[in-house]
Amino acid sequence: MSAGEIVGVDLGGTKMLLGVLDPDSKVLWESREASTGQTENELVELLIREVEEAREKCPGVAGVGLGIPATIDHERGIAISAVNLPLDDLPIREIIGGRTGLPVFVDNDATVAALAEHLYGAARGVENAVMLTIGTGIGGGLILGGEVFRGATGAGAELGHTVIAMDGPPCQGNCPGRGCVETLASGTALGREGRAAAEREPDSTLGAMLAEGETIDGKAVTEAALSGDATARGVFDLIGSRLGVALTSFANIFEPEVFVIGGGVIAAGDLLLDPARKVLAERALPPMKKTPVVAAELGSDAGMIGAAAMARIELEQVKG
Amino acid sequence: MSAGEIVGVDLGGTKMLLGVLDPDSKVLWESREASTGQTENELVELLIREVEEAREKCPGVAGVGLGIPATIDHERGIAISAVNLPLDDLPIREIIGGRTGLPVFVDNDATVAALAEHLYGAARGVENAVMLTIGTGIGGGLILGGEVFRGATGAGAELGHTVIAMDGPPCQGNCPGRGCVETLASGTALGREGRAAAEREPDSTLGAMLAEGETIDGKAVTEAALSGDATARGVFDLIGSRLGVALTSFANIFEPEVFVIGGGVIAAGDLLLDPARKVLAERALPPMKKTPVVAAELGSDAGMIGAAAMARIELEQVKG
Repeated sequence: MSAGEIVGVDLGGTKMLLGVLDPDSKVLWESREASTGQTENELVELLIREVEEAREKCPGVAGVGLGIPATIDHERGIAISAVNLPLDDLPIREIIGGRTGLPVFVDNDATVAALAEHLYGAARGVENAVMLTIGTGIGGGLILGGEVFRGATGAGAELGHTVIAMDGPPCQGNCPGRGCVETLASGTALGREGRAAAEREPDSTLGAMLAEGETIDGKAVTEAALSGDATARGVFDLIGSRLGVALTSFANIFEPEVFVIGGGVIAAGDLLLDPARKVLAERALPPMKKTPVVAAELGSDAGMIGAAAMARIELEQVKG
Repeated sequence: MSAGEIVGVDLGGTKMLLGVLDPDSKVLWESREASTGQTENELVELLIREVEEAREKCPGVAGVGLGIPATIDHERGIAISAVNLPLDDLPIREIIGGRTGLPVFVDNDATVAALAEHLYGAARGVENAVMLTIGTGIGGGLILGGEVFRGATGAGAELGHTVIAMDGPPCQGNCPGRGCVETLASGTALGREGRAAAEREPDSTLGAMLAEGETIDGKAVTEAALSGDATARGVFDLIGSRLGVALTSFANIFEPEVFVIGGGVIAAGDLLLDPARKVLAERALPPMKKTPVVAAELGSDAGMIGAAAMARIELEQVKG
């Protein structure tokens, strides 16, 4: 992969992380801006300003890769809809490309994170990997036969919207489904189940945190669990087991070499992964029972690195 | 695709269908043998006898493709385990290849059916298709990016073992899972729900069939439903809706251009597919809501045709 320097952008719901990466994916320059509370138009202007600033610092920039937590039309470069950003059928490739004169490529944030983990992280050297990024929602990325798989137009790999409970609660955000793993095992679910557990068990650490007026969200449950609170650990058993049900389906469907779990909730490490591994070992078909379930390696840079790598691959393909 | 004539075998739980196919997949010779109640060794001997007979009729036979309803190690040609056949870690490629001197290729029966539908049937001209064969169990076949997808060793695409109800009943056969779509929406489930409905509604056609001592299985429920019995149609609404939940997950995961539904239960046609389409339209993410759900076109020949096509493709790849 050559094509000079590439701007990689991880356009998240709370912050935008932008970096200029050289052909070895070394970060030459980086910026971080808040993205919360901005309109669609303000986000676009912010993005253009930051890309232009990156070009001033690194004049060799040859393209831009955008990773966005949204349903994406990858071929046409459109952000169809997003849960946490005000993007609605936005032809973002055309807009950013037109204003900057650079080739722009657009992809789902979890898909580019999977690509980054495939190239440089926990799924290195593997032909088939399933990645989940567990935060406010659950994003999905697929490496199949050594390549990123996105579905017909790039709207696929929405692994968070795999049903694990057909009569379960309505899913969150824009999803019209019920009982999706996103609504039952995301960071949002972790906080919700944590609050319920804190109310049930006032004598636990989690219960004390609630009594002291602390917000019981995913982060608070993680802190309590890491400090040894049995109630908070019980919440992770519940969330991790539900995750394990989804992994069971993905194991039977994909027979991957590895599951890579990223996103904010992976801060809990094996407290989340062990119950998931247990369910997988109990419920998956024999050849898939022992599929490794590991934490992502690239942390919060995965989206930025993967977005740049995706753009680099696309540019090379255009060049033939 | 050339490579002369190929023997395609659909080794089912009740019958073995074997054909010699020319490069245009025209059937030159065909045989059908019962496979019920045979030991592993008897099945192997039957298979070898039939392959040898096929070669006598068509001396140009250049290879053999086997489609087997089992978890398969495609690369090594091993039938790992099957629900309805006594196959247990059988190195069937090596055995049949060694005895006949022909190159042998082994694949899952639903996977080769998907390949046949992709080449000649309902998924012609499509890059991404998801196939389910609904009979005693539910088999799965995946065409992704224009190619058959099998997972790391060929044990993947077990779409019937996608969980739709995490706290549901234990799955059937060798599957250690719970609430898999196979146990909730297969022909076996259709018969089970049909019997329950017949007992609940003795005045229905289905109830009368039960009273007359008829076996209420999937076929009986299909007959009653096709004859207009509201009770039997209600059973199809239930089974079809559950199928729709699985299709919702597959739509969000794969963003396929088409769902192809085959197997014995598709005899009910839209009585099965309409409730599935309804759930898909209600629950899938917006870009995937309208994914077409169609009946397979090749009927009971799909496995045989697909097994031969698979072997032909593998032979061509070996030749380079």
